[in-house]
Amino acid sequence: MNDAPFDWPAFAASLGEVSVEADPALVKLKSRDFYWYSPVLKQQLRHVTADLVVAPRDEAQVIAVLRRCFAAGVPVTPRGGGTGNYGQAMPLRGGVVLDLLGLDAIHPVRNGVLRVGAGAKLGEIEAASRPQGWELRMFPSTRRTASIGGFVAGGSGGVGSINFGQMREAGTLLSARVVTMEAEPRVLELRGAEVNRVHHAYGTNGIITEIEMAMAPAQSWIDYVVGFPGFMPCAQFTDAVARADGIAKRLCTSVAAGAAAYFKPLREAILPGESLGLFYIAAQSVAPFEEMLRAHGGRTCRRLTEAAAEAHVPAFEFTWNHTTLQALKVDRGVTYLQVRYPARDYLATVAGVVAAYGDEMPMHLEFIRVDGAVSCAALPLVRYTDEPRLRAIIADLEARGCTVFDPHTYVLEDGGMKQTDPAQLAFKHETDPRGLLNPGKMRGWEESRA
Amino acid sequence: MNDAPFDWPAFAASLGEVSVEADPALVKLKSRDFYWYSPVLKQQLRHVTADLVVAPRDEAQVIAVLRRCFAAGVPVTPRGGGTGNYGQAMPLRGGVVLDLLGLDAIHPVRNGVLRVGAGAKLGEIEAASRPQGWELRMFPSTRRTASIGGFVAGGSGGVGSINFGQMREAGTLLSARVVTMEAEPRVLELRGAEVNRVHHAYGTNGIITEIEMAMAPAQSWIDYVVGFPGFMPCAQFTDAVARADGIAKRLCTSVAAGAAAYFKPLREAILPGESLGLFYIAAQSVAPFEEMLRAHGGRTCRRLTEAAAEAHVPAFEFTWNHTTLQALKVDRGVTYLQVRYPARDYLATVAGVVAAYGDEMPMHLEFIRVDGAVSCAALPLVRYTDEPRLRAIIADLEARGCTVFDPHTYVLEDGGMKQTDPAQLAFKHETDPRGLLNPGKMRGWEESRA
Repeated sequence: MNDAPFDWPAFAASLGEVSVEADPALVKLKSRDFYWYSPVLKQQLRHVTADLVVAPRDEAQVIAVLRRCFAAGVPVTPRGGGTGNYGQAMPLRGGVVLDLLGLDAIHPVRNGVLRVGAGAKLGEIEAASRPQGWELRMFPSTRRTASIGGFVAGGSGGVGSINFGQMREAGTLLSARVVTMEAEPRVLELRGAEVNRVHHAYGTNGIITEIEMAMAPAQSWIDYVVGFPGFMPCAQFTDAVARADGIAKRLCTSVAAGAAAYFKPLREAILPGESLGLFYIAAQSVAPFEEMLRAHGGRTCRRLTEAAAEAHVPAFEFTWNHTTLQALKVDRGVTYLQVRYPARDYLATVAGVVAAYGDEMPMHLEFIRVDGAVSCAALPLVRYTDEPRLRAIIADLEARGCTVFDPHTYVLEDGGMKQTDPAQLAFKHETDPRGLLNPGKMRGWEESRA
Repeated sequence: MNDAPFDWPAFAASLGEVSVEADPALVKLKSRDFYWYSPVLKQQLRHVTADLVVAPRDEAQVIAVLRRCFAAGVPVTPRGGGTGNYGQAMPLRGGVVLDLLGLDAIHPVRNGVLRVGAGAKLGEIEAASRPQGWELRMFPSTRRTASIGGFVAGGSGGVGSINFGQMREAGTLLSARVVTMEAEPRVLELRGAEVNRVHHAYGTNGIITEIEMAMAPAQSWIDYVVGFPGFMPCAQFTDAVARADGIAKRLCTSVAAGAAAYFKPLREAILPGESLGLFYIAAQSVAPFEEMLRAHGGRTCRRLTEAAAEAHVPAFEFTWNHTTLQALKVDRGVTYLQVRYPARDYLATVAGVVAAYGDEMPMHLEFIRVDGAVSCAALPLVRYTDEPRLRAIIADLEARGCTVFDPHTYVLEDGGMKQTDPAQLAFKHETDPRGLLNPGKMRGWEESRA
């Protein structure tokens, strides 16, 4: 909206009965996510704000809003719980933030498949599904507040990826209903491989209103924090659990002492200098897990039922990007990187990186499954000095065989995607001919228009 | 029992109220397993028979029988459903076959753990557990008739090993109660890693009376037979499903057309020359499975609910060693090998073997999980000419990087074990000082006595 003054009150009024928020402070609040994890994005995006927040309560209202926005040339940036870390939901060119939390219907699980409104919170989906014998296959560490639509549009995996891999793998995300940004918005239903056209596309090529996800059979999980005097023994143990096909788990994380020292809610449970393993272990696997822990020389710092952990701080809220959040609560001088270690002999590479960087980069490993095998991802903290040093660390990690996904960019292709997904770009041409959806995020589109 | 005549009727009478069978025809019947899959074992073991079959109904009776057998120097060979393929339950030196099917108590599943008598049939365990929301993590293709004790003592994995690996991996077999063969038999409870002292030891070092197993959450499975015009496309598809972390499955098998041609119960469902993929796919994964099948150029030959498959012949009764059984029902001129392909690039090795042997060795792959990664095992049929040719094939497979487990031996170490397990041997010294349990099967023991 860089052109002539625009009559926002008239536009808001034209939306009829759809809920609209115009108060600048509240609009600014809902124009943000956790972009400030990155000192780079914090500088770049701090002034970003929408003009209005519009909160439809169903798909018909989404269609009505998009019709009006298209006609008026108003950009639309969709938003769920606002828990992203890359400015996914931040409206670079102002306009409307489309708050989708009102589309929160959770249907009964049928044949292991959940149909759910895009705005449903992940925590509420778990709570609704568990009594039916099902649970989410995967969720981000922001489970308490994130929406499923936001997870699908802006995330990639998380707790549970040790069993089911990333969300983009065939079989988890089964379908999505998507509203197009056209004079007369259409509702498309994407199924099977097609669904990756809108998965992790930041809402740049359609507004997701409803999702079908394959679920996992619910299990009774025990929430573990275990301690080791050194990081590599901790990583070796976590890797052994991750690879132990007979031990049922949902989370396998290692955190170096330098990061664990920031975990205020665990301060009484852990010893100074301890590196931590964080796990969700199924009840039937507690005995072999603890036997393996003893054999590796570790100790149990905290062991809770899932319900008790929820009442306190669950183990998963020290994992994935919550590791960074826990650190930032104490020390605004840290940031982080996203790393995938090489598929083979990854622990040797981990050991080399840990030896080279020590406490400048407190290591933090997340074990996941990739192509049927255990693989090692990392979100190490970095004690930030300046951007050249950060770039030098990234270059060195790449020289060691790691893949680094830059979390310090709001551009889709410069982060986890690495390159323009042609299916996503082609789909945007079809669904958003005027380029009004979350503008500025998909480089391939911007370049094709330039 | 090579020494002086022994008064079997008096011995039988001394067992009091324990059920005894002395009729030679019935005793011979219960002295056999499916050893005749192997033309080598068929020659070696055809005359093996016990003197008595003794069938205790509880652990107290097991103790009473062992006490008497020890005193009289009578060998004891334990037996469950008699579904082994290596003469595991065949009494090489006569004496007593201990029929344990009477120890068939199935307790309710607690915290995902099943406590069960060694004689309980696997099919009955499944039937009892499913309504409680649990199922076996793994079972052999002989599920309908095999006992859990026999599976623990004589098996290694099977259907479900694509998820949970082999039974010897930590976390599935949690404990075993074992009665020793001593003047005063003791009951030992092995837990954790100790349990592998008796797992796959053929009952040579203790009589297993009760077992605790970790279970899997029950799922609703769809039984698939799919067809491909060639074997390698079929293997590539099966491998892709096995590695697809988002597709929930319990069975991933490929069978070459040369073996599938023997599958009489599938004759109407499959086309001449078709190679088959056999799968158990969870209901929530049916759509992505079928999408992947179309992408690979395969077709669905048969698709049944699990209940409908049970009423007919379930897909798993064409897999694992049932592949061999189905072939032998039609053609007594075939036998088989047990092969583990190399961990890396296994499909390239499979392609080389298939090209080299063609229809002399119709290939049959079973995908399983090993150390957190998908791995490829095989039980190819072999059109048997003579033993030198069989040995030449084995040597060639080993030269290609395969590990071959000889199924043509009743000696523990010469089959799947490859070498004496020192823990099993040490445990036999402790539990069976006179060497009366299943004598002749553990080479390490025989050699230590020689």
